[in-house]
Amino acid sequence: MNNKLLLDNLRCIPDWPKKGINFRDVTTLFKNPECIKTITDEMCEIYKDKGITKIVGIESRGFVMSSAVAIRLGAGIVLCRKPGKLPCETVQESYKKEYGTDTIEIHKDSINEDDVVLLHDDLLATGGTMKAACDLVKKFNPKKIYANFIIELVNEDLNGRAAFDKDIEISTLIQV
Amino acid sequence: MNNKLLLDNLRCIPDWPKKGINFRDVTTLFKNPECIKTITDEMCEIYKDKGITKIVGIESRGFVMSSAVAIRLGAGIVLCRKPGKLPCETVQESYKKEYGTDTIEIHKDSINEDDVVLLHDDLLATGGTMKAACDLVKKFNPKKIYANFIIELVNEDLNGRAAFDKDIEISTLIQV
Repeated sequence: MNNKLLLDNLRCIPDWPKKGINFRDVTTLFKNPECIKTITDEMCEIYKDKGITKIVGIESRGFVMSSAVAIRLGAGIVLCRKPGKLPCETVQESYKKEYGTDTIEIHKDSINEDDVVLLHDDLLATGGTMKAACDLVKKFNPKKIYANFIIELVNEDLNGRAAFDKDIEISTLIQV
Repeated sequence: MNNKLLLDNLRCIPDWPKKGINFRDVTTLFKNPECIKTITDEMCEIYKDKGITKIVGIESRGFVMSSAVAIRLGAGIVLCRKPGKLPCETVQESYKKEYGTDTIEIHKDSINEDDVVLLHDDLLATGGTMKAACDLVKKFNPKKIYANFIIELVNEDLNGRAAFDKDIEISTLIQV
């Protein structure tokens, strides 16, 4: 899939957040009702028969599409957040970034062994955060883990898909 | 309205984020597919005839329900974020908090004079952030501004509704 409507509406910001990076700005898709409908339709087409019970939105652009898809699939939503923002007991995962280490967490009582989990974020670049989110969700031993991105940066230097374990099924809606 | 399903599923965390505060944790509603459906149904019932063209989600729990409501109302989604997270030119609003000042911003090209805007966040406490978001959206001179929260803290000390100008129509789904 490589939906023309989504490609045509995706904004590219040169040199953001730093020189040399062409940032793909998903907000121009969110702003457009037709794009929201297309993203929802395409995600639901991919996952309609997978028995998804939980959608994990990755802070914070990954939160946006979670409810439209969750309501259609009959799933609940779990927030994957940076430390200190979830009020109850959490399970954490730390991962290396270009400079230093980051940590993400989700509520301990938010996923169980009966769940089929779809993790979602807007953009696959290096895949570092999503890989950590997958490792975090694995600690809950769910039946199956899927990962979805709206946009995939296809670039030999990034090779985001290579970051993931083979048992994680990945889908992306547009490749740029 | 004061939906029993939502009230029954809302978790209260004593003394978080600090001693003396009973934090209402919306994540237990997000986790439950029936609650997601109820929130969406109730919001769409309130706003179905208002001609809403843009839903402004307040970072970041306010992002979660935006797509389920937007897709049903045929609206676009605009992100109201903390500074430095939106890649294009923004319009900003600063506001006083208990200690110091905060700033929020939205993309300059995200709202126009033809829009009818629904701002959304999970929780109305003092109303400070949402008041600032309303003032920010007013700078775009849209036709009309509505504000919605899932949870309203009803408490004489807070009196969140009093923060808002009279031309902002406010709705909340549950009051605690």
